[in-house]
Amino acid sequence: MATHRIGIMTGGGDAPGLNAVIRAVVKYAVGELHWQVVGIEDAFNGLLEHPRRLQDLTPKSCKGLLPQGGTILGTTNKGDPFAWPDGNGGVRDRSAELAEAIREEGLEGIISIGGDGSQAIGWRLMQEQGVPIVGVPKTIDNDLAATDFTFGFWSAVEVATEALDRLHTTADAHDRVMLLEVMGRTAGWIALYAGVAGGADVITLPEIDYDPERICAKIQQRKDRGRNFTLIVVAEGSTPATGEALPSARRHGRGHIVAGGAAQTLAQHITERLHVETRVTVLGHLQRGGSPVPFDRVLATRFGVRAVELIEQGRWGRMVRLRDGMITDVPLAEVARDPRIVSLDHPLFDAARKVGIEFGAAL
Amino acid sequence: MATHRIGIMTGGGDAPGLNAVIRAVVKYAVGELHWQVVGIEDAFNGLLEHPRRLQDLTPKSCKGLLPQGGTILGTTNKGDPFAWPDGNGGVRDRSAELAEAIREEGLEGIISIGGDGSQAIGWRLMQEQGVPIVGVPKTIDNDLAATDFTFGFWSAVEVATEALDRLHTTADAHDRVMLLEVMGRTAGWIALYAGVAGGADVITLPEIDYDPERICAKIQQRKDRGRNFTLIVVAEGSTPATGEALPSARRHGRGHIVAGGAAQTLAQHITERLHVETRVTVLGHLQRGGSPVPFDRVLATRFGVRAVELIEQGRWGRMVRLRDGMITDVPLAEVARDPRIVSLDHPLFDAARKVGIEFGAAL
Amino acid sequence: MATHRIGIMTGGGDAPGLNAVIRAVVKYAVGELHWQVVGIEDAFNGLLEHPRRLQDLTPKSCKGLLPQGGTILGTTNKGDPFAWPDGNGGVRDRSAELAEAIREEGLEGIISIGGDGSQAIGWRLMQEQGVPIVGVPKTIDNDLAATDFTFGFWSAVEVATEALDRLHTTADAHDRVMLLEVMGRTAGWIALYAGVAGGADVITLPEIDYDPERICAKIQQRKDRGRNFTLIVVAEGSTPATGEALPSARRHGRGHIVAGGAAQTLAQHITERLHVETRVTVLGHLQRGGSPVPFDRVLATRFGVRAVELIEQGRWGRMVRLRDGMITDVPLAEVARDPRIVSLDHPLFDAARKVGIEFGAAL
Amino acid sequence: MATHRIGIMTGGGDAPGLNAVIRAVVKYAVGELHWQVVGIEDAFNGLLEHPRRLQDLTPKSCKGLLPQGGTILGTTNKGDPFAWPDGNGGVRDRSAELAEAIREEGLEGIISIGGDGSQAIGWRLMQEQGVPIVGVPKTIDNDLAATDFTFGFWSAVEVATEALDRLHTTADAHDRVMLLEVMGRTAGWIALYAGVAGGADVITLPEIDYDPERICAKIQQRKDRGRNFTLIVVAEGSTPATGEALPSARRHGRGHIVAGGAAQTLAQHITERLHVETRVTVLGHLQRGGSPVPFDRVLATRFGVRAVELIEQGRWGRMVRLRDGMITDVPLAEVARDPRIVSLDHPLFDAARKVGIEFGAAL
Repeated sequence: MATHRIGIMTGGGDAPGLNAVIRAVVKYAVGELHWQVVGIEDAFNGLLEHPRRLQDLTPKSCKGLLPQGGTILGTTNKGDPFAWPDGNGGVRDRSAELAEAIREEGLEGIISIGGDGSQAIGWRLMQEQGVPIVGVPKTIDNDLAATDFTFGFWSAVEVATEALDRLHTTADAHDRVMLLEVMGRTAGWIALYAGVAGGADVITLPEIDYDPERICAKIQQRKDRGRNFTLIVVAEGSTPATGEALPSARRHGRGHIVAGGAAQTLAQHITERLHVETRVTVLGHLQRGGSPVPFDRVLATRFGVRAVELIEQGRWGRMVRLRDGMITDVPLAEVARDPRIVSLDHPLFDAARKVGIEFGAAL
Repeated sequence: MATHRIGIMTGGGDAPGLNAVIRAVVKYAVGELHWQVVGIEDAFNGLLEHPRRLQDLTPKSCKGLLPQGGTILGTTNKGDPFAWPDGNGGVRDRSAELAEAIREEGLEGIISIGGDGSQAIGWRLMQEQGVPIVGVPKTIDNDLAATDFTFGFWSAVEVATEALDRLHTTADAHDRVMLLEVMGRTAGWIALYAGVAGGADVITLPEIDYDPERICAKIQQRKDRGRNFTLIVVAEGSTPATGEALPSARRHGRGHIVAGGAAQTLAQHITERLHVETRVTVLGHLQRGGSPVPFDRVLATRFGVRAVELIEQGRWGRMVRLRDGMITDVPLAEVARDPRIVSLDHPLFDAARKVGIEFGAAL
Repeated sequence: MATHRIGIMTGGGDAPGLNAVIRAVVKYAVGELHWQVVGIEDAFNGLLEHPRRLQDLTPKSCKGLLPQGGTILGTTNKGDPFAWPDGNGGVRDRSAELAEAIREEGLEGIISIGGDGSQAIGWRLMQEQGVPIVGVPKTIDNDLAATDFTFGFWSAVEVATEALDRLHTTADAHDRVMLLEVMGRTAGWIALYAGVAGGADVITLPEIDYDPERICAKIQQRKDRGRNFTLIVVAEGSTPATGEALPSARRHGRGHIVAGGAAQTLAQHITERLHVETRVTVLGHLQRGGSPVPFDRVLATRFGVRAVELIEQGRWGRMVRLRDGMITDVPLAEVARDPRIVSLDHPLFDAARKVGIEFGAAL
Repeated sequence: MATHRIGIMTGGGDAPGLNAVIRAVVKYAVGELHWQVVGIEDAFNGLLEHPRRLQDLTPKSCKGLLPQGGTILGTTNKGDPFAWPDGNGGVRDRSAELAEAIREEGLEGIISIGGDGSQAIGWRLMQEQGVPIVGVPKTIDNDLAATDFTFGFWSAVEVATEALDRLHTTADAHDRVMLLEVMGRTAGWIALYAGVAGGADVITLPEIDYDPERICAKIQQRKDRGRNFTLIVVAEGSTPATGEALPSARRHGRGHIVAGGAAQTLAQHITERLHVETRVTVLGHLQRGGSPVPFDRVLATRFGVRAVELIEQGRWGRMVRLRDGMITDVPLAEVARDPRIVSLDHPLFDAARKVGIEFGAAL
């Protein structure tokens, strides 16, 4: 059995299950195969900074890691080695330097856990600098076309669903319209799944501009049938179809969407139109934090094992994925950058409408 | 054993444990003492509307009620019988009508579960209209001076604490400042208890105008010591001490505080001052919803039993309460309307400072 | 749009998600299609007893049902209409009587939510008595070959995984061997999934007779590496390979496995052999109870909608199922009665071994 | 400000909140007062073994510790320094050696977190060997007379209450008698509080020998009123009053109570007498594991701060405690070794009976 020495890193936004992937890689590669695994801190930054920030990972250093949220390696959205900030407002290419650092550390290749951006960087590193990469997909929004599900998604859905359960009891006691803003700037998967799981009456998605009047009509129709409350799930990226510009209150600073902006916009419309009380909850990063649900832990563990198997087989340049219930893999080159969004013919979208959920549009 | 026929109602905002009080009253009064208990819907509205909305309550109708959030009787903040909206923008006194309805329904008296407002109405009803009342205190903010704790408070603290646990892992992964806005317009108990229980670095309270600079200094100090994230709990009623008027974005419609306004105000200051990323979560009504924690279920059960005992003993005009770990009672006349707020010499406030929590003020 | 009047029932052991199926059927069939849906209580018993026990189901009667465990219709393992207890220790065929009752109630057909036993009865009823049936699969053990997953399974896995998380912290503090007995008499899926998700060191399955010596060796090996605790998941149907008869203590009454018997058997062996302290937890029906996780709620909702769609299309005699991530359906005649068990070449079993989990056998 | 160097240790069984005490001590003593705090591993064993096992504790080493179950210092029931196993089946006094080690390490005194046994050892160490001790009470059973509540108790009650919630839904679906065995060998506080919080129908306590016939009568009475299920909480130390010896199956090995023995004994009686199905769940160490509830985190934090305050004030020889809602302290000499048990005149016991809970005895 050949011995290998590989690096592992996490890039982009965090998602519950990152630590479970790291643990599985270490448990299998180090614990069973007796390889060496080196953790690189804060994506590639740990290799490009001086001094380098690296950790030798062993089964012992992974104790208690499986249920833990976040990532022990840290992560960042900043630090594309091909476009590294040069401090003068511009960028420069540090990819050759990075490849050199990887060789200096004796790393045969890298397991890169990250979203489509990270995977694209990995593929480019492999092509242009000859750095062997195996990818593990990560996106809490579940918007990567290459994989059916990624770890973290069902954990986020659980947070949002529990929130709906809580809001349901208090909405019912009070005759109120409750709005829950969830993550999803371009893809509304969390809103759709949590809305179905939590019994929402209305869901707004980034994929469908909603007509506030249809939503008000739904609230009124429920009232007419003796239901004095309505639960609305609002994806943070959803917008009204009325053509009005985004309220300025929704954006501030460096272009971030203001927490609660999308929900507040709709709440204001409802209050003005129907004179009912509305209440807004904004989950924000609660959806990223905390312990992964068992589904995500199992998936993350299987992704980690498969990543090591790919290296065992010398099959660098591929990304593991889940397809039709099976763990398989796909060439990194084929990992599309177009996000997978909710389509009108998705079966769950259809089922959601059949149990009476309103999406704010004639479809 | 004399037989009694009593009414029960819930008024004001809901809190986890309302159903547990109702259940305990019914289990003891109906199940053991063979009295009759009538549930009045939506506070006194159920008696003042035509037709009246009342429910005969039996142990069977309380099946599964103990863990259930909300209130099966419904509740409302509207409908003071002494100042009932007359439909023309004014109010009229319907208290005599209410007393008449209570007599017509054969109710010997009422168990009124509610906050200081409800208790004051109850006491006035008893004095002016001769309606016997026993009070059960309810305030999710724990700001009633007459009782050490009420049910619902620890449930709200648990929701906020779990949120901090979740934010902790993701903040740690990302080097971010996370702000969690919790309930508390005039009293900051939830912020204080949850902040201590969830390991917050900074807490802002309605009782202490905060200096944003001190908070930025705390963030910077943590950074200097290698802690790249900071967790901040923001009570919704807390405001900066800088003398600046409340940002207009914080208020809208009928004077409601905008969800997230207080957190957003502080977040904006931090972003502008320190150029760090901030993220805001707004719990809102999540804190009212869901199943009560065991502490609240036990307390609610004991309150319900004690309320019936007071009626057994003919001691109308009193409110049950928790004092120094014991269930006792207090004259309704003495239930102060001044909310109990966090004082600088409260032992938990002192302990919080000793474990290093910053309150944004030199104290 | 033709109007239909259909019955719905739940049979066999309960599983989280039964109410979510019922709700989805009612929401779609009654709320959207304006059919009539009649709930039959306690499987077919509600039609065979006098008076019959039936409920008209409407969207209103499904309020709050989605997150609720159990089944509002009740369920039972007793009452095969083809072999009904005659009270004298024998059985008699009441299937014609049942078919007659279904016709008398004006039911066009029945949605039968149940395990392989219920589905076989349904198929026989259709063939022999002409009662149209659509099946919805239910098995908390996930051992139905016809479907990849059923609702309730991931909820059970979550209960077991949370238990492992808890045991982990206390085992670690105390240098102990902790055994967790989970459901699974013939199929060890819950043990396998929860063991992987909860970081078990050892899993015993009904499918693999375990050698207690191998398990003791694993405990010892961990000790040698400085890990003074070991977490073991024991499926209730797992047995040692030593050829010894089952300890008499494991069985009592009418052939039930005694709660904790399998774990106690292994614990005793470990204590005697290694002189270490062991502690046993027996989850029992905790695994069936409580609110379904979002995965199960979504799956149950989709199953319910699909069952109604089958009836819309006149496709009686089929069972809905999940295959490769898609909701499809299969002829009731083909629903095999052989349970799907864990095979040695199942990918998760392989992954489990690769992260170092011991199954007590040389494989 | 004088500088101090103190030790801290955890002894006896673990309880959720131990880490929160350690964290509060370190945050205040090191972070604010700039003392030194040394963690001693596995109670006093870390000082008596060679090499010694000690940890310098800093705020940084306490990162993420607040919500964490178990104890980072480890704990053990073995190792009384006054009666240390000599390896030949006897014991010898190593207390002088321990005092010497404490002096060698430059420790001014020790914060000892433990139960009545640990506190008695601490007091003896102080008297006989001049080792300054401050005690922090710990007992998951809440049976220490000196304090109203200790951390860990409400966390255990929450685990047991959630279990009852789960069992309720499945019991209801199935017409069954469910038995939940909880901790409590001599004191039944967990059974009492969880039974009230979880809506048990029957509770058995170690303090009251139960008459199985009364419990069967309760089950039958519920059946007669249309309630086909019964929830029973069984404290592990409870026994029938029938005078029969404990079934041999309940004890094994070194005198441990067999997990589930108490519940199984009662279940068997019910099955034989009423011919109903029973199901047993045994929580075992689940009650010790996992994250402390907010109540316990706040209490543990306040205990930790107060322990440091006592040392600041030079008040060695005392134990912190909660009395009537206030954190106070008591001389170690007065910490009684008699456990506080449930008395028939305890107010919660009275309230439990008034909501209809049966304790298996005419009282």
